[in-house]
Amino acid sequence: MYFELEKTATQGQARAGILKTAHQTIETPIFMPVGTVGSVKAVHQHELDEDIKAQIILGNTYHLYLRPGLEVIKNAGGLHKFINWNKAILTDSGGYQVFSLAANRKLTDEGAIFKSHIDGSKHIFTPENVVDIQRIIGSDIMMALDECTPYPCDYKYAKESLDLTHKWLKRGFNHFKQTSPLYGFEQAYFPIVQGSVYKDLRQASAEFVCQFDAVGYAIGGLSVGEPAEKMYEMTQLVTEILPKNKPRYLMGVGTPANILEGIDRGVDMFDCVMPTRNARNGMLFTKNGIINIKNAKWKNDFSELDEQGTSFVDKKYSKAYLRHLTISNERLAAQISSIHNLAFYLWLVKEARKQILENNFSKWKKEMIIRITQRL
Amino acid sequence: MYFELEKTATQGQARAGILKTAHQTIETPIFMPVGTVGSVKAVHQHELDEDIKAQIILGNTYHLYLRPGLEVIKNAGGLHKFINWNKAILTDSGGYQVFSLAANRKLTDEGAIFKSHIDGSKHIFTPENVVDIQRIIGSDIMMALDECTPYPCDYKYAKESLDLTHKWLKRGFNHFKQTSPLYGFEQAYFPIVQGSVYKDLRQASAEFVCQFDAVGYAIGGLSVGEPAEKMYEMTQLVTEILPKNKPRYLMGVGTPANILEGIDRGVDMFDCVMPTRNARNGMLFTKNGIINIKNAKWKNDFSELDEQGTSFVDKKYSKAYLRHLTISNERLAAQISSIHNLAFYLWLVKEARKQILENNFSKWKKEMIIRITQRL
Repeated sequence: MYFELEKTATQGQARAGILKTAHQTIETPIFMPVGTVGSVKAVHQHELDEDIKAQIILGNTYHLYLRPGLEVIKNAGGLHKFINWNKAILTDSGGYQVFSLAANRKLTDEGAIFKSHIDGSKHIFTPENVVDIQRIIGSDIMMALDECTPYPCDYKYAKESLDLTHKWLKRGFNHFKQTSPLYGFEQAYFPIVQGSVYKDLRQASAEFVCQFDAVGYAIGGLSVGEPAEKMYEMTQLVTEILPKNKPRYLMGVGTPANILEGIDRGVDMFDCVMPTRNARNGMLFTKNGIINIKNAKWKNDFSELDEQGTSFVDKKYSKAYLRHLTISNERLAAQISSIHNLAFYLWLVKEARKQILENNFSKWKKEMIIRITQRL
Repeated sequence: MYFELEKTATQGQARAGILKTAHQTIETPIFMPVGTVGSVKAVHQHELDEDIKAQIILGNTYHLYLRPGLEVIKNAGGLHKFINWNKAILTDSGGYQVFSLAANRKLTDEGAIFKSHIDGSKHIFTPENVVDIQRIIGSDIMMALDECTPYPCDYKYAKESLDLTHKWLKRGFNHFKQTSPLYGFEQAYFPIVQGSVYKDLRQASAEFVCQFDAVGYAIGGLSVGEPAEKMYEMTQLVTEILPKNKPRYLMGVGTPANILEGIDRGVDMFDCVMPTRNARNGMLFTKNGIINIKNAKWKNDFSELDEQGTSFVDKKYSKAYLRHLTISNERLAAQISSIHNLAFYLWLVKEARKQILENNFSKWKKEMIIRITQRL
């Protein structure tokens, strides 16, 4: 597995690259649709591939570990075979979900103890066993166990948490080095930079993770409620320290504008539930702005869903029809909107890449952010 | 619009025919997927067309009238254009839903008065205005307003109800004759035979509807809780009276076995929510029997969903994966199961047609009913 930097913008830090993983050569910058329990919600695998043009999707270790469970995934021969997805998969470490979903969670030096939100059963995630779990899942890219600090977070807590995240990273990376893939293809292991919104902690963390010779590095603990400017500031501070020849993944980000700003600060990979979650609530992202499809103004608008859209739903269905389906709580509404939004996100990063390669990213980004953030 | 009988079985009354409608030449016997509010639940239009091979779908007048409402449908240029479906559409008259869904419903000679289940607004369906409504919807086949008697239903009520249904039919047919299509294509109007489970009422009703020179006739008020044998008996009694050269539509039927028995008794058209509703609960119909995909026995069964299935979901996804999605309440589960079940229903009627044309239906039906009714 390797990363090749093709081009860096002369204005700003935007980069175009190639990340070669076991299942897919990924053109960066890239957005990764979230497929929590082994399904990107409301989307068929062939739609992800052919209509959305996803190159890599994300699975949540916490969810997959609880259901279907490791026995089933192992018997299937890994997650790729289980869900029949032949391109790349990245899994998180499960730490974030333990703190957002599980009951009775408790952090110790050893790891994160929690009760399942499904059946109350008791479990522990350690830096070592989340490597083992992700070996069984068989993701192309595995993530280190970390604590994702909330926002706001006082300095003392952020510092202690960062120490724990760093200790866990050492143990996790050691375990990663001492274990082997189960299915005959290579897996990468990404350390995660934490440090809340504190410059010195972010700097220390970025420097700390560099000692591990990883294929790529992630930036966690952002997009958790802090002002966007803080997120951008922390991102830039970290990408300036991380090695130039390795991909950087900004976890859980974000809006289309957040993604363009992240790219401008040297980020190569993104994931977020926003395109699918907001789709289920009737929010559509387009090249010309944001549509709330429930709005009465679309009631008799029989024009194509998105004349500039890139997937079949944009041509096949009208705004008025999608509005009707959304208001009527029809399942097809979420299916249409999810494909549309994901195809838009993938178009956006592909176009960003093109603009980077043409040395026009900075100018294009400014214009694009104005367009995509307006309300239609 | 016309119907051409191609072949009638020598044993039993099974028939193969061609029903030419404005949008589609339909090969009968046929099953019509239910698209209540202008969407077959969880299924894209191109999947209906290419994967399920539906030739005609059903829309519910009650639902469409309330939402999106007639203004939107008229502005769209009819339901076909609104939902972008170019094959045939049949709409019911709305009477059945008034009695199963609406609040404060009341039957008078004039029509059915009811309050919307969505916003409590007050409405009336009359034999005349349901023609007007279906003219606006623009379905290829419209249905007469009737009262669908419940089961059990005492003789006195069934007889009085039948008198009302017949009076309404006269008014509705007159209104149909006096009005014209709005969108430049022909619409048919099907009378409905009622009479509960009473032979003399069914006979009288079948004879009554014959006086109207309709393109086809429907049999209503069955599959409402009566024993299957009663349904078959009433169906046969009615089809023996209805003109041979017109299609017969058995409303709301049924299980795959019900459909084969209906075909054997001379029925040409069927609709039912069962393939999609049961799909959403994890029940799959296959050539070899019924699968409850939630069952633990499928947990580690990574074989194709249905090796003999006709749609892409059968090859693309495994039983274990669909079980996992179903148990996890993932939207994709209903999408996969709905496509599978509808494709099976359409395969079943297509195969029935082939067997009729080959003069082998009766033998094939006996074997098939044993196979498809077993539990896997």
